[in-house]
Amino acid sequence: MQFSYYMPTRVFFGAGSLKKLGEVKLPGCKALIVISAGPSMRKQGYLGQVTDLLGQQGVKSVVFDKVQPNPIKSHVMEAAAIARAEGCDFVIGLGGGSSLDSAKAIAVMAANPGDLWDYIGGGSGKAQPIPNRALPIVAITTTAGTGTEADPWSVITKEESNEKIGFGFDDTFPTLSIVDPELMLSVPPKLTAYQGMDAFFHAAEGYIAACASPISDLYALKSIELLAKWLPLAVNDGSNVAARAQVAFANTLSGLVETTSCCTSEHSIEHAMSAYHPELPHGAGLTMLSKAYFGFFLGKIPGALYENMARAMGQDVDALPESERPQAFLVALGKLIAECGLANLKMSEFGIRREELPTLARNARETMGGLFDLDRYRLSFDETVDILSAAYS
Amino acid sequence: MQFSYYMPTRVFFGAGSLKKLGEVKLPGCKALIVISAGPSMRKQGYLGQVTDLLGQQGVKSVVFDKVQPNPIKSHVMEAAAIARAEGCDFVIGLGGGSSLDSAKAIAVMAANPGDLWDYIGGGSGKAQPIPNRALPIVAITTTAGTGTEADPWSVITKEESNEKIGFGFDDTFPTLSIVDPELMLSVPPKLTAYQGMDAFFHAAEGYIAACASPISDLYALKSIELLAKWLPLAVNDGSNVAARAQVAFANTLSGLVETTSCCTSEHSIEHAMSAYHPELPHGAGLTMLSKAYFGFFLGKIPGALYENMARAMGQDVDALPESERPQAFLVALGKLIAECGLANLKMSEFGIRREELPTLARNARETMGGLFDLDRYRLSFDETVDILSAAYS
Repeated sequence: MQFSYYMPTRVFFGAGSLKKLGEVKLPGCKALIVISAGPSMRKQGYLGQVTDLLGQQGVKSVVFDKVQPNPIKSHVMEAAAIARAEGCDFVIGLGGGSSLDSAKAIAVMAANPGDLWDYIGGGSGKAQPIPNRALPIVAITTTAGTGTEADPWSVITKEESNEKIGFGFDDTFPTLSIVDPELMLSVPPKLTAYQGMDAFFHAAEGYIAACASPISDLYALKSIELLAKWLPLAVNDGSNVAARAQVAFANTLSGLVETTSCCTSEHSIEHAMSAYHPELPHGAGLTMLSKAYFGFFLGKIPGALYENMARAMGQDVDALPESERPQAFLVALGKLIAECGLANLKMSEFGIRREELPTLARNARETMGGLFDLDRYRLSFDETVDILSAAYS
Repeated sequence: MQFSYYMPTRVFFGAGSLKKLGEVKLPGCKALIVISAGPSMRKQGYLGQVTDLLGQQGVKSVVFDKVQPNPIKSHVMEAAAIARAEGCDFVIGLGGGSSLDSAKAIAVMAANPGDLWDYIGGGSGKAQPIPNRALPIVAITTTAGTGTEADPWSVITKEESNEKIGFGFDDTFPTLSIVDPELMLSVPPKLTAYQGMDAFFHAAEGYIAACASPISDLYALKSIELLAKWLPLAVNDGSNVAARAQVAFANTLSGLVETTSCCTSEHSIEHAMSAYHPELPHGAGLTMLSKAYFGFFLGKIPGALYENMARAMGQDVDALPESERPQAFLVALGKLIAECGLANLKMSEFGIRREELPTLARNARETMGGLFDLDRYRLSFDETVDILSAAYS
């Protein structure tokens, strides 16, 4: 029973909380607003609302609108140069995890020399100390997936070497995060499902990780409970405001799990998949891996972990013979995936070929090997390939 | 489903975590260490350990050792003057809630002009804005009671007017908190019980308060669950390290409840009791009030609140007829109080006279009237007296 807790972000949660941006003290006078390359932030009016609210406080802004679903290092460097040239003194990420994670990395590089990979710990990163404080970060999330509004993590891909690596430290916690479920009403069903499953695996991996603690367990089991109950409702009726709010809350809790525990090797393996196939949504990759991944660990890690997750998901675990209880988590996971309409995802349909699975396993272990150290059972290279093969179709 | 979350304290939790003080970056070069007037911090060796650990980092220190169980304003002002005269640039509270709360108030007054009551919002306080940032605060808790290591609140008594009032703002969150259950092993059974019941009521009041939210509910129900299970064990065998750790964790969770929700009028009423009777331990006062207090609200606030707390305390609520379920919380509360050896506490034995109950009710409503606004049922003056009368023996 040992843990440390540090999550200095001020979070405003709830329908309508975007308006807080016009009311609370902001960490600067000129913002770089980071959004995706797609049309939605403009089309939904969110960008206009944000610039209006900033304007109410006399805060100026510049927009960087090139972020891809799997954000890349060259965009981070380009945006950081713009922030410096424009004299921006803070960075706002507006959108999904890709925009928010980009904002974090941009805030670091706007205030520091060299290349982002000078400071990255995994893969070909040079793991140098970061000399200067990052610019303050404001996170306005319009999806419920990464939980990045409540954690320090930023996941960026170095495109030329297919390295998709997470990094983070005290300065990459947002100063301010706004989680307004009303901004999530327009997310289409499939993306709602992918993002919600990402949040689910943050909680489930954080719960079985070797670095879990009583405080991360509290967040994780609640997030798992809420997602099992509400994610299918949000997927199947995107206008269900109550479901959107519960899923958003679960996602923020999963961010707190990321802050207080950690992901396991499932995330490393998925990062390899989407580093080589940038069009693969992260949550889809995790979902396709998950039954094989969690199935592999069955019997290799304490059964109570799976039992508690199954119980949180509404399974009547105690009615089962003791030996079958851990299995109930896999049943509940399959049910959740099916209810979210994701039972028929196939890696082959995202362009992944069976021959490249060893390459993906190698990439996972080289670029994000640290998460393998946090599994309670140590996966070999062959076992990593086995999981990918079992998940392949 | 609306809430804000802000708890910027870095918490190190666990047996042996005191040694972090020698390892982590501290917020200054010279500390004022605030301890109680009693001998325990020196006798147990905790003060020596703290100064040694500071010394390892080249941090100097001065000790202020006059804090009383119900800390008083004149001591806050005296210590603040010492901090200024000695050039202290941060304040360490070492001990129970009284020392930690004092450290917070001292950190404010060491950096600000005038009198503490210039800045207090209730009673005769002038509610002026605080011009300067407080000194950074480090909280090292040796008891499990107030949760002050994870909240911004400081409760100080203005002795000449019997005003015991809580205040707090962003600057009064500790920068760093250390919760080391090994430092709690020597707390005697009666104090363990009083302090644990204080933590319990922070959670229970925060759960029924009108300002409760999904995040405070998460902390509150877990704290209630852990205290119902582990507090009697810690009271009855103080050397039970597992029980001490669980109670310490519950107490930190209750601090998070204080941060994300709030106490209700039970705390106002108890503050009046111990403002007039400074020898009355806060947790004893709350315990003596509690059956009458929570009994009064039965049927006046949603029954599900009591049912959920009863469930968390291990009561088989669902086996009861629906109309009797809320009552199960009062049964569980009585059981917990009895198991902690507190069933026979009497106000009269702490010097409280029946005739002064109206005075106490008036003081509660005048000095900490704000908490009455957070009750889900609005207590009149007469009803406040009725609760005190029902609790009196």
